[in-house]
Amino acid sequence: MDPSLKQQARQLVEQSLREDLGGGDLTTQTLFPEAVPACAELIAREDLILAGMEIAGMVFNHLDPSLRIQTHVRDGARVQAETPLVRVEGDGRSILMGERVALNFLQRLSGIATLTHRFVTALQGYSAKIMDTRKTTPGWRDLEKYAVRQGGGQNHRFNLNTGILIKDNHLELAGGLGQAVEKTKREFSHPLRVEVETTHLAEVQKALSAGADIIMLDNMPVEEMKQAVKMIAGRAVVEASGGITLQNVVPIAATGVDWISVGALTHSAPAADISLTLRKISG
Amino acid sequence: MDPSLKQQARQLVEQSLREDLGGGDLTTQTLFPEAVPACAELIAREDLILAGMEIAGMVFNHLDPSLRIQTHVRDGARVQAETPLVRVEGDGRSILMGERVALNFLQRLSGIATLTHRFVTALQGYSAKIMDTRKTTPGWRDLEKYAVRQGGGQNHRFNLNTGILIKDNHLELAGGLGQAVEKTKREFSHPLRVEVETTHLAEVQKALSAGADIIMLDNMPVEEMKQAVKMIAGRAVVEASGGITLQNVVPIAATGVDWISVGALTHSAPAADISLTLRKISG
Amino acid sequence: MDPSLKQQARQLVEQSLREDLGGGDLTTQTLFPEAVPACAELIAREDLILAGMEIAGMVFNHLDPSLRIQTHVRDGARVQAETPLVRVEGDGRSILMGERVALNFLQRLSGIATLTHRFVTALQGYSAKIMDTRKTTPGWRDLEKYAVRQGGGQNHRFNLNTGILIKDNHLELAGGLGQAVEKTKREFSHPLRVEVETTHLAEVQKALSAGADIIMLDNMPVEEMKQAVKMIAGRAVVEASGGITLQNVVPIAATGVDWISVGALTHSAPAADISLTLRKISG
Amino acid sequence: MDPSLKQQARQLVEQSLREDLGGGDLTTQTLFPEAVPACAELIAREDLILAGMEIAGMVFNHLDPSLRIQTHVRDGARVQAETPLVRVEGDGRSILMGERVALNFLQRLSGIATLTHRFVTALQGYSAKIMDTRKTTPGWRDLEKYAVRQGGGQNHRFNLNTGILIKDNHLELAGGLGQAVEKTKREFSHPLRVEVETTHLAEVQKALSAGADIIMLDNMPVEEMKQAVKMIAGRAVVEASGGITLQNVVPIAATGVDWISVGALTHSAPAADISLTLRKISG
Amino acid sequence: MDPSLKQQARQLVEQSLREDLGGGDLTTQTLFPEAVPACAELIAREDLILAGMEIAGMVFNHLDPSLRIQTHVRDGARVQAETPLVRVEGDGRSILMGERVALNFLQRLSGIATLTHRFVTALQGYSAKIMDTRKTTPGWRDLEKYAVRQGGGQNHRFNLNTGILIKDNHLELAGGLGQAVEKTKREFSHPLRVEVETTHLAEVQKALSAGADIIMLDNMPVEEMKQAVKMIAGRAVVEASGGITLQNVVPIAATGVDWISVGALTHSAPAADISLTLRKISG
Amino acid sequence: MDPSLKQQARQLVEQSLREDLGGGDLTTQTLFPEAVPACAELIAREDLILAGMEIAGMVFNHLDPSLRIQTHVRDGARVQAETPLVRVEGDGRSILMGERVALNFLQRLSGIATLTHRFVTALQGYSAKIMDTRKTTPGWRDLEKYAVRQGGGQNHRFNLNTGILIKDNHLELAGGLGQAVEKTKREFSHPLRVEVETTHLAEVQKALSAGADIIMLDNMPVEEMKQAVKMIAGRAVVEASGGITLQNVVPIAATGVDWISVGALTHSAPAADISLTLRKISG
Repeated sequence: MDPSLKQQARQLVEQSLREDLGGGDLTTQTLFPEAVPACAELIAREDLILAGMEIAGMVFNHLDPSLRIQTHVRDGARVQAETPLVRVEGDGRSILMGERVALNFLQRLSGIATLTHRFVTALQGYSAKIMDTRKTTPGWRDLEKYAVRQGGGQNHRFNLNTGILIKDNHLELAGGLGQAVEKTKREFSHPLRVEVETTHLAEVQKALSAGADIIMLDNMPVEEMKQAVKMIAGRAVVEASGGITLQNVVPIAATGVDWISVGALTHSAPAADISLTLRKISG
Repeated sequence: MDPSLKQQARQLVEQSLREDLGGGDLTTQTLFPEAVPACAELIAREDLILAGMEIAGMVFNHLDPSLRIQTHVRDGARVQAETPLVRVEGDGRSILMGERVALNFLQRLSGIATLTHRFVTALQGYSAKIMDTRKTTPGWRDLEKYAVRQGGGQNHRFNLNTGILIKDNHLELAGGLGQAVEKTKREFSHPLRVEVETTHLAEVQKALSAGADIIMLDNMPVEEMKQAVKMIAGRAVVEASGGITLQNVVPIAATGVDWISVGALTHSAPAADISLTLRKISG
Repeated sequence: MDPSLKQQARQLVEQSLREDLGGGDLTTQTLFPEAVPACAELIAREDLILAGMEIAGMVFNHLDPSLRIQTHVRDGARVQAETPLVRVEGDGRSILMGERVALNFLQRLSGIATLTHRFVTALQGYSAKIMDTRKTTPGWRDLEKYAVRQGGGQNHRFNLNTGILIKDNHLELAGGLGQAVEKTKREFSHPLRVEVETTHLAEVQKALSAGADIIMLDNMPVEEMKQAVKMIAGRAVVEASGGITLQNVVPIAATGVDWISVGALTHSAPAADISLTLRKISG
Repeated sequence: MDPSLKQQARQLVEQSLREDLGGGDLTTQTLFPEAVPACAELIAREDLILAGMEIAGMVFNHLDPSLRIQTHVRDGARVQAETPLVRVEGDGRSILMGERVALNFLQRLSGIATLTHRFVTALQGYSAKIMDTRKTTPGWRDLEKYAVRQGGGQNHRFNLNTGILIKDNHLELAGGLGQAVEKTKREFSHPLRVEVETTHLAEVQKALSAGADIIMLDNMPVEEMKQAVKMIAGRAVVEASGGITLQNVVPIAATGVDWISVGALTHSAPAADISLTLRKISG
Repeated sequence: MDPSLKQQARQLVEQSLREDLGGGDLTTQTLFPEAVPACAELIAREDLILAGMEIAGMVFNHLDPSLRIQTHVRDGARVQAETPLVRVEGDGRSILMGERVALNFLQRLSGIATLTHRFVTALQGYSAKIMDTRKTTPGWRDLEKYAVRQGGGQNHRFNLNTGILIKDNHLELAGGLGQAVEKTKREFSHPLRVEVETTHLAEVQKALSAGADIIMLDNMPVEEMKQAVKMIAGRAVVEASGGITLQNVVPIAATGVDWISVGALTHSAPAADISLTLRKISG
Repeated sequence: MDPSLKQQARQLVEQSLREDLGGGDLTTQTLFPEAVPACAELIAREDLILAGMEIAGMVFNHLDPSLRIQTHVRDGARVQAETPLVRVEGDGRSILMGERVALNFLQRLSGIATLTHRFVTALQGYSAKIMDTRKTTPGWRDLEKYAVRQGGGQNHRFNLNTGILIKDNHLELAGGLGQAVEKTKREFSHPLRVEVETTHLAEVQKALSAGADIIMLDNMPVEEMKQAVKMIAGRAVVEASGGITLQNVVPIAATGVDWISVGALTHSAPAADISLTLRKISG
């Protein structure tokens, strides 16, 4: 994780610890008035791609800087079920207080990385790249896009300020597709490429004539995609989008598109199964 | 949504708009130098339980207080595919800038409400209640628990400060289960009940003897659950937990447990399918 | 202090230093352009129960991480007048800048702990426990409840989310006391007990019949309290509340109530008398 | 309250509502699923000087902007026991949720104003002014100083950036009192006057010679104060400080000092007694 | 200003009012215990391009929502000396408290817009566009880039996340310029163009061969720039950068470059001269 | 920098890194997947007075605590062109990410210190002191006033809470100048001196009679200033203000005024020229 991402993660870690501790962990405080030396391991309970390990460490570290954290596996790694991921040693009370929050981060991010990886693996042998979308959990944009990268995916726009993408709803208001593309190409000197969403071949043709740098084929039948790719013939990057699943992604890749963007990577990835085991040690 | 939840939602709305707009929406600003009168509708694309409608309104309202928002359906309602949910009218640029964030909130929360409702529906005729867990997205705890309520589920602890729950990892450090329960019962005058996690009948017996108010049966076979329920015989609330799915929830309810807690409600609910259509109107 | 409390304390420490320093300490900066090696001691000027020592340390540490802080006495300790509490050594300018803020925290929290302790001491030999209330300084809830614990008191609800307490004003709107208690008992599956406020014996009877877990006797004459305790006969926890002072607390405890809640612990405790002495040392 | 104070108050109001509501008011939400038309009055239960009325209004307004608030008495007013202060009308649930926080603000600030007023009243006929100190609750500096003004007191320094005050601990490090005063007078062009703390007449003499604008007499016997006032003879403002109580303040004023500063105004004022009564109305 | 910018501006307005008011405006509060009906006008004291008018309004509105604000001139307008810009009417105390902060925003942003406009005007007849840089005041990035747009300039990258720009220091670490460009072109699927900094013709040639989309000519003599433009021949966008002033900008534009980026627009623009006049009115 | 200033600086550093990194530095991350050992030097490119060195260090330190920072020159020092200021060693990626933000702070603050120093130098031999104003960049007040001190200037009021200054616009509402001064002298016991703005000799006379502690001569001709200084004759501090430049400051100082306040120090200082050179080292 780069410094900018770490800073964001740190803020979310602080917020989520406040959220989960409230005024304090009543169970742990009542049971253990004094420190209890302990060691814990986070263990993958299914095959997964790991993402969020540094954040899990931040959780424990923020709660109790005296905890010793020894990471066995790094983000982006393929991990088999029952693999220990990280060992945390120190006051067992701090481990108990951080357990759920650390797991919540790790399970969500690894869930995204793992689902992304399934798509990437499905496309082996094809040149198409798996891209994410802006369909991310509010407050988690950069973290979820990081998890997509760990799974081998690529990031589309980070936000509305990092790319020109003329979508169906823009066209609804803008008038002609060609004019809209030309206007942005003409008036916008910023170092960004111009992308436009198309839904059938006539629009693809207009986009091409207007000089679009990237052409999105939205919810197009596979056969029409093939024709679009042929028509574009390398003069623009081609992105397939809309309703992509593990079931239909391969034939879409076979059409020769450059990018395939998948909202489900971030909005519908199930949590990865990871748990924490703890045992007392002699202090 | 009560005032405390609204305040939290408002903060997350502001943060996520910052996150999605970055320095500004380049596409919209380039295409439309002046206001464009428009109206939009958010439409359910599949059958769902609605949650997050007020937040979606906040998104548009925060971006542009002059937008007129007319809600057709309220949170908690069962909605059929192709039902319009809300109408937004005003400057089309503001609608375009808020579209993705509003949908991201609505799709995630409705996804949770919808999955919860499936569990609740499955249990019709049984007295067991569907409960959520603390396995929520960091930063989203109270919102996700709100969505669970919209789907007809019940909320377990909000955080570590709103309930005593002695789990396996506490017992690992605390020594005997009976002692741990007795200690919290004795030392803790706060108006909370004491819950303890058990994994087999001997522990259930100890929990009962020590006076536990709530006994969790963790990952117990259905047959053993039945015996536990019989053993407890109404002297404590009984909660089933661990690996609960739509496939196995009915036989578990049939054991006579009071509560069934399901992590997947919040950590693995797929997004509900909702979209926004926009059209120009004469100002 | 547990990690969640420390995090809160740290934020209040930062805020209060900003508040007290404004743009900078003009006096200290003008008098001392260079570092001045010094050592200081915080000294109790009256008998007190200490609370806030870690926070006082945070103040100095936040201002200047190079200060060396050596704590002589820990929170919860009984301290006699003229006892040195902590020694701070390093740049005298940093000590001068932190002095007032550190004392403001320490004097307030020790004041609360000391007053609580007086109540607790008065009740020696009785089983009744001294409880705090939600009558705390806005922004200080968890810190003040921590100070109550240091003085030997117990914490009632942390906030409206950590307990069901049906008060007179709820009953004003809810209709019958019995119905209100039954409704919460029936509809609320959350692991919390249900408490209800009563003002005379007929209400106590209703509360009992409806199954209240805790019954508050609000501003009841001592004689009536005795009867209420007899009537309840262990079937619910009994809490005395309203206008409790050091003068009237013993006869109330003698009625056999379980809890006595005292708003004055947090809303009217006078500051403890603590001061800081400083002297130059050879660097 | 001026705009800067209102802004601070608003932030503390938001924070304290979060603090008191946590994830939501379980009692109110369970009892009242729908709005209940109600009206409430805040009533003084003892004679007091009112402070904090606008903040109490902010609490209710922030929770529920549809509440109608009608203020009967303004800050700074002398109020007799059993006087209604403000009427709040609207959804009873919102009133119940805001009650405690509104009272916590109002009772604390009115407590300070009332205590200040007692000191001010005691000094009628004397020219000495009652001043506050920096011994305020962390996070509440400006609000508490506002309450002092409502009680008729004057504000000393707002923080270390708004006044030069050379105290005993500065002198401990600085060497001679005369030199310290001269140095600040010479080097400091900022539009602030220079004050110095003295403990006996020799120091008063030095302070005077060095040109101090304000001379503080710290914990000096009344007789010595008289001599100091005579010695200073109007050439500097004279401030009495240290251990001032309602018992000893009059003889101190009689010495002819200009200012008398009292830490207890803000660090030990007991809460004023104010309560809220609520009743159902027909919507 | 778009909604995202307004939100940023609002936060900076709140922060700067806190900064300028501190605990309150002592002068105004002392002189005017009661409201004083007044009206004010902000007046340009020199020819300028206006920027920041909405923010100035926010300042007054945030201080006192009852002020009536009537804007005469909008951002981006050319304004002659002695033109009234906006009229503010209401409580004179609020106007006095907001005066300095409103002017500080307006003078800085109009200063930037005015300087930008001078560059843009100088280039009339040339196709080169004036671009800003990342040399902005920390905390003011988006606001200063907005001011540049008001002056007729164009925005280069908003931040490191919205453009690929390989600078001299990257090349120092990366090895060959050609390789670096190729690597980013190959590995980076994001919809951004790739820019590289060059300092002499050999590098320009390498950049071109490697497929750079934009080539920056850094501190190159005018004659060499001409050759570079000829060499590139429209195959990449050409940007001139480094030490550009109003004195040397015309010959640089005459070389045929597409963009000219000027750090001074944001880091060295002198404040525009604007002042506020106030007069009492009959309420 | 004192602790209060450091705390402010740290917040602005965090904010500006977020602002400049956005979701991450795409160029650096794409070019360098692994750490690249490097060392950098910040070098003055013109003669300047240094200010902001600690903040530049904070930038690098916040991004990457493992960077080693070795400062050659401290704030307030006179530095000649081509002098190395600080050496940073460690992962080159972190240096590249922090470069622009560190320079933005250093160039702005050194620009202010350098311009201030030019005024101070111009006045050698005169007793008049150069003062700053409240015409600072919103969000930067205390930092810019710090830079003024590094250049040898003095600080006027930090904010409206740290000084009484009755300006023309106050007088517009207040009625007579004499009355206004008397009113503040009488009613305001706070340890601040009272300053009033005057524009001609009659007002100076009134200010004097009313007991003003400081008299500002606003935009007065030099000859009139001389007369004012003679008239005041040491009975009040005299401040010259309005349109002061390096061209006219000496004759103004020669009139015998005590203070000369210059808005341009903070609102129109051009950035100092400083750059960063980087080279690879063997790790």
